[in-house]
Amino acid sequence: MAERIAIIGAGPSGMAVLRAFESARRKGADIPEMVCYERQKDCGGIWNYTWRTGTDEFGEPVHASMYRYLWSNGPKECLEFADYSFEEHFGRPIPSFPPRAVLHDYIKGRIERSGIMHYIKLSTAVRNVTFNEETQKFTVTVKDLVADTLTSSEFDYVFCGSGHFSTPNIPEFPGLTHFLGRTLHSHDFRSADEFAGKDVLCVGASYSSEDIGIQCHKYGAKSVTFSWRTRPMGFKWPARMDEVPLLERVEGKTAIFKDGTKKDVDAIILCTGYLHHHPFMEDSLRLKSRNRLYPPNLYKGIFWIDNPKLMYIGMQDQFYTFNMFDAQAWYARDVVLGRIKLPSKSDMFDDIQKWTEMEEAIPDASGAIDFQTEYMRDLLAPTDYPRLDVDAVAKMFKDWEHHKMDDILTYRDRSHKSVLTGTLAPVHHTPWMKAADDSMEAFLNQPSRVAAE
Amino acid sequence: MAERIAIIGAGPSGMAVLRAFESARRKGADIPEMVCYERQKDCGGIWNYTWRTGTDEFGEPVHASMYRYLWSNGPKECLEFADYSFEEHFGRPIPSFPPRAVLHDYIKGRIERSGIMHYIKLSTAVRNVTFNEETQKFTVTVKDLVADTLTSSEFDYVFCGSGHFSTPNIPEFPGLTHFLGRTLHSHDFRSADEFAGKDVLCVGASYSSEDIGIQCHKYGAKSVTFSWRTRPMGFKWPARMDEVPLLERVEGKTAIFKDGTKKDVDAIILCTGYLHHHPFMEDSLRLKSRNRLYPPNLYKGIFWIDNPKLMYIGMQDQFYTFNMFDAQAWYARDVVLGRIKLPSKSDMFDDIQKWTEMEEAIPDASGAIDFQTEYMRDLLAPTDYPRLDVDAVAKMFKDWEHHKMDDILTYRDRSHKSVLTGTLAPVHHTPWMKAADDSMEAFLNQPSRVAAE
Repeated sequence: MAERIAIIGAGPSGMAVLRAFESARRKGADIPEMVCYERQKDCGGIWNYTWRTGTDEFGEPVHASMYRYLWSNGPKECLEFADYSFEEHFGRPIPSFPPRAVLHDYIKGRIERSGIMHYIKLSTAVRNVTFNEETQKFTVTVKDLVADTLTSSEFDYVFCGSGHFSTPNIPEFPGLTHFLGRTLHSHDFRSADEFAGKDVLCVGASYSSEDIGIQCHKYGAKSVTFSWRTRPMGFKWPARMDEVPLLERVEGKTAIFKDGTKKDVDAIILCTGYLHHHPFMEDSLRLKSRNRLYPPNLYKGIFWIDNPKLMYIGMQDQFYTFNMFDAQAWYARDVVLGRIKLPSKSDMFDDIQKWTEMEEAIPDASGAIDFQTEYMRDLLAPTDYPRLDVDAVAKMFKDWEHHKMDDILTYRDRSHKSVLTGTLAPVHHTPWMKAADDSMEAFLNQPSRVAAE
Repeated sequence: MAERIAIIGAGPSGMAVLRAFESARRKGADIPEMVCYERQKDCGGIWNYTWRTGTDEFGEPVHASMYRYLWSNGPKECLEFADYSFEEHFGRPIPSFPPRAVLHDYIKGRIERSGIMHYIKLSTAVRNVTFNEETQKFTVTVKDLVADTLTSSEFDYVFCGSGHFSTPNIPEFPGLTHFLGRTLHSHDFRSADEFAGKDVLCVGASYSSEDIGIQCHKYGAKSVTFSWRTRPMGFKWPARMDEVPLLERVEGKTAIFKDGTKKDVDAIILCTGYLHHHPFMEDSLRLKSRNRLYPPNLYKGIFWIDNPKLMYIGMQDQFYTFNMFDAQAWYARDVVLGRIKLPSKSDMFDDIQKWTEMEEAIPDASGAIDFQTEYMRDLLAPTDYPRLDVDAVAKMFKDWEHHKMDDILTYRDRSHKSVLTGTLAPVHHTPWMKAADDSMEAFLNQPSRVAAE
């Protein structure tokens, strides 16, 4: 009987696995049977937008953390699939920082061209994954959310690509129970419009906080205050935006910070990150990690060291995204197909140690980019994934960091050059701070063309 | 080895089971070992208040649906435990419609006096319940949320008291994706303050909609519009409150209803009820029901007909609440202890049929009260649960319904008489519409005493 592979999640990570195997199949390789389970009703993972928060129509936790007016916060040229350029998908060059709907369209186009949809079971939530030492098989129990039934099947390999930006990390702060305003986590943030005219507090100093804060500013918040734990973001904030130390407690509508300063606020948005949450994995298979560049117990950042037939894709903190999931998927595929041989457990352990020590020695953001670039290079070397100039991508990431330090409100107006096509992206027709409409139509068409249609 | 009982949930239903067995034990009976699993960090079930929405600090869906300023929407005299009066707990008579914190205190007092806390494992979520035909045992797998570990144990009986007002039923309405305001389900409603000055639309015509609507009105909403599917609530609404047919779609900030009328709104609160959601139950054990007075496949509304060692407590639509869970728990306990013998499966089936036909013939709210009163009488007759005058309770429910029709804003200012103590409740010091502070201190103390302290 053919070997069988279960893939958990049909977002960019799970789809990378499907594409990796499908690519081998089309080149004549025998590949195992594949089933990909996706709890949402569409593929695309976190790139799906929904107005829902909390739980969905089936009582499942809402996966997506996307909000209206979310635009890519990194250059699209840094995440381009090496075998499918934006230029190919849209038929012409487009600006470097597209809104969500444009990225979603690009991802979907890649899936359609890959012919992998038939492997995917939508509206199917994975409930339970166990491993039987005797049979050396995994049992995967899934719930068909529409039929409301459970089914179990056996697999030889499991790929977990269920993401780690879906289950919010929500700390407690004294006084929130009696706060006379709205409290929400960034996972439940849907639209900056709601906060127009309000004093908003964003707790956190990473990407969510930065972006939600400037979205609120863009759409008319009265003020935005960022509260940091470890260090401030340090951007040159415009008027009505400020950074303060960590929130200590709340009294009435007053937020009180570690340095004793106070601010009356209408809303507290906890941009406090996400949990690695795999409730369906039995203890011996479950990755427990904070958000870091090299999660523990994963050889090559992929293979569960105690049972390398279980592979995790995309569980890293990320500069590289779509193309890193591809690099991981191609590498893992070649292991499954016997093209790459895994070393002994102790060698795998030593390799993890080496990378972990490197990670712990990273001095700054630039060093973090170099670290993940090295990781990419290591994965890409032995596979047939199309050539990707990671040195050029690394340089682009560093330029982008500098642009953000120059002006956090205008870095999205910059243009970057595709490492695939060599094309310099055109400048968008409207500066980002003035571009209120985030639809694909508005983005792709010049305003005059929109008006003419 | 002693028989073992697993109880899922330490809310009013699960605690009723613990109390029923503990009561028998104190009277000298041999009882099975009991373990009660509660995913929240405190017992009290849905009566816990939290500022959290969506998922909690462990990534588990937030259980509680309570909001600030929630006051009992039925007379406390209708839900009084037959063996523990409000007067006993508070040391004096209190008004008939207490705020949440007061009811929570009463529930907690009952637990403490019962000495049942040691049976309860808090912060422990049930992940999986299966039944083994060979061994005739249930395997219950639970997650210790703090330790982040899974454990499985075997049980002879399972009581499921996990509630059915925790997982929201969230239908789709066209246009919500682009609605330029806030959309939330009543499960995530936390404070009416947020909606002061806003035009609020409550979709739904049952208790949640009614109460959240009048809360918003009380705390200064600009207008409250109720949208009904089957029939309007029909109360005498004051100015700035209105009922319209079902929401058809949303355009921008405009809600458009089935009759073609329109209303611009700032917030849409979906008061669209809850799902019976037991994701931890294997298919053959899982109750699937809408919210109804007699859920399917449960003999006496309790025993899972295909496997009566599985018992569901409190899964009914409810007039009677705490004392109904008690009545069910005492009856189920007596079956487990061999004091009541279950009839044959076909007789149980016929009995379910009989009740279901009665339920389907109920003409109106008064008939529904009579139906559940009959159900109570049927359960109470054979057990030693202290005498409860259900006819007096039924009359009180009907009076309450009339008071609501008289004036939906003042029914909470009425007094009802305890069927246990015979005491007529005192009138509260402040009419409900003027009582902005819902704390236990404000409720229990006369304003002059509060001021003096």
